[in-house]
Amino acid sequence: MRDVVIAGIGSTVFGKHPDTDIQTLAIRAAAAAIADARISRDEVGALYLGNFVSGPLTGQEVLAGLVADGLGLPQIPCTKVEGACASGGIAFRHSYMAIASGMCDVAIAVGVEKMTSADTATITAALNCALDNRSDGGSGLTFPGLFGLAWRVHAERYGTTRDQVSAVVRKNKANGLLNPLAQMGASLTFEQIEQSTPICDPLRLFDCCPASDGAAAVVLVAADRARSLKRSPIRVLASVQTRGSARIAGHPDLCTFEATVDAAKLAYGKAGIGPSDLDFVELHDCFSIAEIIDAEDLGYIPRGQGGIFAAEGRTAVGGDRPINPSGGLLSKGHPVGATGIGQIYETVLQLRGEHPNQVAGARIGLTHNLGGTGVACTVNILGAPNA
Amino acid sequence: MRDVVIAGIGSTVFGKHPDTDIQTLAIRAAAAAIADARISRDEVGALYLGNFVSGPLTGQEVLAGLVADGLGLPQIPCTKVEGACASGGIAFRHSYMAIASGMCDVAIAVGVEKMTSADTATITAALNCALDNRSDGGSGLTFPGLFGLAWRVHAERYGTTRDQVSAVVRKNKANGLLNPLAQMGASLTFEQIEQSTPICDPLRLFDCCPASDGAAAVVLVAADRARSLKRSPIRVLASVQTRGSARIAGHPDLCTFEATVDAAKLAYGKAGIGPSDLDFVELHDCFSIAEIIDAEDLGYIPRGQGGIFAAEGRTAVGGDRPINPSGGLLSKGHPVGATGIGQIYETVLQLRGEHPNQVAGARIGLTHNLGGTGVACTVNILGAPNA
Repeated sequence: MRDVVIAGIGSTVFGKHPDTDIQTLAIRAAAAAIADARISRDEVGALYLGNFVSGPLTGQEVLAGLVADGLGLPQIPCTKVEGACASGGIAFRHSYMAIASGMCDVAIAVGVEKMTSADTATITAALNCALDNRSDGGSGLTFPGLFGLAWRVHAERYGTTRDQVSAVVRKNKANGLLNPLAQMGASLTFEQIEQSTPICDPLRLFDCCPASDGAAAVVLVAADRARSLKRSPIRVLASVQTRGSARIAGHPDLCTFEATVDAAKLAYGKAGIGPSDLDFVELHDCFSIAEIIDAEDLGYIPRGQGGIFAAEGRTAVGGDRPINPSGGLLSKGHPVGATGIGQIYETVLQLRGEHPNQVAGARIGLTHNLGGTGVACTVNILGAPNA
Repeated sequence: MRDVVIAGIGSTVFGKHPDTDIQTLAIRAAAAAIADARISRDEVGALYLGNFVSGPLTGQEVLAGLVADGLGLPQIPCTKVEGACASGGIAFRHSYMAIASGMCDVAIAVGVEKMTSADTATITAALNCALDNRSDGGSGLTFPGLFGLAWRVHAERYGTTRDQVSAVVRKNKANGLLNPLAQMGASLTFEQIEQSTPICDPLRLFDCCPASDGAAAVVLVAADRARSLKRSPIRVLASVQTRGSARIAGHPDLCTFEATVDAAKLAYGKAGIGPSDLDFVELHDCFSIAEIIDAEDLGYIPRGQGGIFAAEGRTAVGGDRPINPSGGLLSKGHPVGATGIGQIYETVLQLRGEHPNQVAGARIGLTHNLGGTGVACTVNILGAPNA
């Protein structure tokens, strides 16, 4: 397997794009990534597009080919990949594998979703395509239900408090204020968070990520080809994809997702590092409590202490365990198929030292993208040129 | 890149399965393929699932993980891939690449679609997700419209007659009668075909493939690992994926799909053979006229002579250019995501010498799967153990 680097990144703003169709969002992000990489379109050998529910929400599939057509790429293999909310991470990993395996020297990973033009019931029905509808669909355990339960178990077992979880929300909303791509950064008080609309007890509105439109893209290049690039590229130290149980009842413990635990172990092994070597993490905070569980599953924060670390400010950009300096899904937004690639975008900016909410001296970062009720997971570890 | 072989195949009947949900269809086909290969489930290192519109038609996504869960596979990467009607072929190629690249030694490709429980308007809307809805969706050129136009151009340019096209339908319907997996084999007269319900002039009902439910699966193994298999495996001589224009107006000629032409050239080059070395072809006859165009694009029949060859019986199983001994999409059925894998299933049976409609002495076969208005294409060339 060959070494792979990231030569270019691009993204739309995450938020509402009522007047822009889904392929145009993706084309804009990919065109920006190509321009950032300063490569010729003729060099691209494969395109992977991460998307979850463009069929139900926009009536448009074959997006991989459509986007390649719009970009004027050669007659290369173009493939949409889907693994619910991990679709973007899966697109990145397949672009990585296409180069690592020697299939091609340059690949583009693009992620996209367009959700906000549909009504709430349609969005909810589309998101529930990520459940096992035989076993879980009829239970009422849609995603807020699942994460509400997980919160209760975490609180019971570890003593995690409402204020500790609110500290996650405050931090991510504040981080989003500094990110020009974020959908809903905000400066919130504990009271505002804890008095917001109840969604599924104990989850309140600000504990939940929004529905979003948006796209992000990354250009990957073989390391031996990258010597001719005009800018030092970011290194891909590991790119891993795993699966967990597709059914809620298949998880032995609601306070952990085994796909995350497995992916993190494999990724640390491949990168030859441990979680203490990470300078920051961009992880899948679809709900506030998910940030706590994910950070513990990644071994980035000791088991059961996610709430404490948040409350003590240790997960803020100035802390010793920064999480989601981008604002995360809670604040940057969650255009499902784009999210995993958006995390890579943010991490590359950090490792270039060019992020608007920069972690000082960041050299190694991790991205974590989780799909469904833990059925699919990707973890990537990226390194600065000197890492 | 390592050599790859096919060790096992499985399939449901193609047709109507009103009482079986989509993941169960896929699990049944995959379990049959695993049993046929006589491998342990613990050996499987990756699963790719080809599916087009499970979201809009069944409300179920994350099918790759669901199917792996149902099969009891390890915590391996599981990915749904989509390229409209070429989704199954794309799943096969990614399983092939996972092994050829050394990522794993055993992979499963499964394709599935469940269509017939939806009403006709819903099915039509779902199929139109394969069009570029900006440029083509509003034109009225749904798929029958496109292939009706292509027929008219072929007839004008090459003199192709209604009876010649009917000969394609008669042959495929007759072949389907011999295939126990086929949805609608039949013994039809020219009059029955040419007096059937008009769909989009000149296409009649029997010129169009049906909507179908079904699944098919294949177990692929590294050739160097295959020595321990109990049965001689089928060789994958080439597996290629290409793209063409996503817009109808992007094709310079309605009588050819450039993605097919490109894929065939690449595949012949990789396999080190030419079209005259093929003993039979399973190709993408979504409409009767498509069989003629595809066979010409593949170089299997001289340009413009597809109708003549059909009318002279040369594309029948006893002819010198057998096409679709399975019955093809027209007669075996077209459960979209399953079709490309179903073609592999049929081809493996032929190369084992065990097909119910056997091409005598078949040693090399080609499969051709085309998506959308020619936006995605896969071509595979398979060889008998002694080929």
